[in-house]
This record gives sequence, structure tokens and C-alpha cells, in this order.
Amino acid sequence: MELFSMVGNLAACLTTISFLPQAIKTIKSKDTRQLSLPMYVLFVAGVALWIVYGLYVNSMPIIVGNVITLLLAGSILVVKIKSTFSAKRS
Amino acid sequence: MELFSMVGNLAACLTTISFLPQAIKTIKSKDTRQLSLPMYVLFVAGVALWIVYGLYVNSMPIIVGNVITLLLAGSILVVKIKSTFSAKRS
Repeated sequence: MELFSMVGNLAACLTTISFLPQAIKTIKSKDTRQLSLPMYVLFVAGVALWIVYGLYVNSMPIIVGNVITLLLAGSILVVKIKSTFSAKRS
Repeated sequence: MELFSMVGNLAACLTTISFLPQAIKTIKSKDTRQLSLPMYVLFVAGVALWIVYGLYVNSMPIIVGNVITLLLAGSILVVKIKSTFSAKRS
């Protein structure tokens, strides 16, 4: 594999797995007050479009990386939405 | 512009600007307890490598998008590191 491909793959791995510690922290604590709702809405929408783009250009790394990111960032978004609604109700 | 290029550009815009509301929230509140330090360390490192990759393949959209993301996510990381150290000291 060429050096620039390795750099690209490492970059993709890091930005994808970075959401794992945040997802674990958020799911455990259920405390999302300092997490920005607009950030996770925009980010999850963007990642979903990256998957559509990956399907268009038939790129498995784009599809796989973004499906993993979608699951991680999506789980954070779900906890954020739940806690936002329950805070408004109480 | 072809449809798949538009989808890719929109995806890149969304995932880039998504960090703006989080950066504003974090810089204003200085409260980063629910933000994961490993997430921002891994993410900023990954984004920095994306810039290196963009320079290798000479792709201005990859470079510009990731420089903006680096500034936004980097500013969140700086606030997180500062608050982590000041919390340990007190």
C-alpha cells in the first residue's frame, strides 16, 4: 500500500473510532447537557449523506467507515434527544 | 455538477459545520465534563492526518474542510484539556 493510502486509512480509522469513547461515556452517564444537539443532528445527517455518496461511487471504505460512525454518533444523538425531551417534561 | 458530487459536497459541509455549535457552546460555558477527552484527541489527530492526505492527493476540498474542522474541534480540545488540568489541580 502506498504511503498516502496508509495516511488516508489511518485518518479514517481515527475519525471513526473517536466517537466510541464519547458514545460509551454518554450511554453510561446519560448526562448530555454539554453536548450540542445541533452538532449531532448536523453530524449524523452529514454521515448519512456520506453513506449515500459511498454507495454512488461504490467505495466500501467510505460506506463501512460511515456506517460505524453513524451507529456511534447516532447512539449519542438518541441519548441527547431523550434527555432533552425528559428535561423539558420535568 | 453531478448529483453524487453534490451529495458528497453537502455531506462534507454538514460534517464540517456540525462542530461549530459544539465549539460555541463549549467556549461559552467552559463546561466540558460530558465531553470525552479521548474522543477529541483521536478526532483532532485524525483530522490532522486528513489534511496531510489532502496535501498528498492535492485535493483542495479535503484540505479546506479539514482545516476548518481542525480549528473547531481543536478549540473544543483546548478548552477540554484546560478544564481537565484545572479540575485536577483544585
